[in-house]
Amino acid sequence: MKGKVYLVGAGPGDPDLLTLKALRLLKTADAVLYDDLVAPEILQLVSPEALLRNVGKRSGCKKTTQKEIDSLMISLARAGMSVLRLKSGDPLIFGRGGEEIEALRQAAIDCEVVPGVTAALGAAAAAQIPLTHRHISHALTFICGHEAEQNGGVEWKGVVASGATLAIYMPGESYSDVATRLAEAGLSSDTPCGIIAAATRAEQQIELTTVAELANFRPLPTPALLLVGEVVRLARSEQASVESSLTIVGNDSGSRRLEEIA
Amino acid sequence: MKGKVYLVGAGPGDPDLLTLKALRLLKTADAVLYDDLVAPEILQLVSPEALLRNVGKRSGCKKTTQKEIDSLMISLARAGMSVLRLKSGDPLIFGRGGEEIEALRQAAIDCEVVPGVTAALGAAAAAQIPLTHRHISHALTFICGHEAEQNGGVEWKGVVASGATLAIYMPGESYSDVATRLAEAGLSSDTPCGIIAAATRAEQQIELTTVAELANFRPLPTPALLLVGEVVRLARSEQASVESSLTIVGNDSGSRRLEEIA
Repeated sequence: MKGKVYLVGAGPGDPDLLTLKALRLLKTADAVLYDDLVAPEILQLVSPEALLRNVGKRSGCKKTTQKEIDSLMISLARAGMSVLRLKSGDPLIFGRGGEEIEALRQAAIDCEVVPGVTAALGAAAAAQIPLTHRHISHALTFICGHEAEQNGGVEWKGVVASGATLAIYMPGESYSDVATRLAEAGLSSDTPCGIIAAATRAEQQIELTTVAELANFRPLPTPALLLVGEVVRLARSEQASVESSLTIVGNDSGSRRLEEIA
Repeated sequence: MKGKVYLVGAGPGDPDLLTLKALRLLKTADAVLYDDLVAPEILQLVSPEALLRNVGKRSGCKKTTQKEIDSLMISLARAGMSVLRLKSGDPLIFGRGGEEIEALRQAAIDCEVVPGVTAALGAAAAAQIPLTHRHISHALTFICGHEAEQNGGVEWKGVVASGATLAIYMPGESYSDVATRLAEAGLSSDTPCGIIAAATRAEQQIELTTVAELANFRPLPTPALLLVGEVVRLARSEQASVESSLTIVGNDSGSRRLEEIA
């Protein structure tokens, strides 16, 4: 029997946002290697006979290196297993999916990618923020906040100059690095921001603020996602109309709890 | 009974890439209003009792205006129906989802957004192109090719300066407008491009070329998506290794049929 590796997106968190294909693979895979951010409710769908392993690089007692993950996928597939490499969101966005595909190709292991709903789309749906809008924003850019700390490969000036709505993944333990990069790159300080934590999960939180206030903003629990741009003014508000949410974004505190579903 | 409108993403085409939630709503909705790009296989999942209507703005004998779509959603919901507004991909990316949410809010109609796998993620998965990569690309930008023709709101110079991988939706009937904008904005002419037509559908086609050759490239059938950036060099090749696909991208014809699944 020939083994195969499926790189599968688990979506933003709510098991109801798994694709039909992801659900079927979860139920039938011989082995499931998953990241820290995959919701526990999703892991409960894995067959009890399957080998289930957390290969998250962040939490737990032991840190699994990328090389170890690659070796494990290859060994299990060579043993004839159907291996599900389960990643939060979509496997080809900020998840080293590309590196894993390269490792599998070099080892001549059959590989298939199953896309998922990436975190930004879950966050936008939860807050009802249109990511593009005919009259407001004609582009959407995904960047990783982590790069703000490392001063890595992101060309923040170009990003801001593009006029795109920004979806910033992993905005960090403090939002000051991201806020500084955005301001230095020329983004107007009154640009609205939405912070969506644990989007589509039971503990979801949505808060609205501005670039000016972002640096001082109390960080929300991870996983969090930051949406930045004029479209954020259209975020839904439980009690208020669209018009009044415009004023609330710019109020004294610079932020407001929009919603917290417990 | 109180009506409600669900703005639902149908994903890139393959019914297997519907979310569990989208499938359940398809089976239970009282009315389904869908766009042209939604795959016929997905529409077959709608309950036979449900009101089913194409409100696509492109094809068919009659053009439905945005105002008519808004009125229809509102009337059906006011009649107590559970209304599914079904959009290709994700409802909040290039789909006027924001405008429909605003219309529903103004009419005080309850509304929920169900995210979907957007076309770029389906295309990337099909071609096994990582959209971001730790060593190659730290950002990803979605733009609409339609804007290239109209010289609309996209700041192409900023987009190119950002260094992001580009996912260009609706690249148009000829790719020359997009190619011109990219070149004028300073993108290197040997930057690789992947054109993915009907991603995840039975008639899927994947072709690789470069920005220099793009203007002369025979357009593929719609829906097509254009991925542009160095990460495209990592696209899968059926017969070749990653290394050889690097050379193939820059060969004499400037393009190559990578795959055609019939």
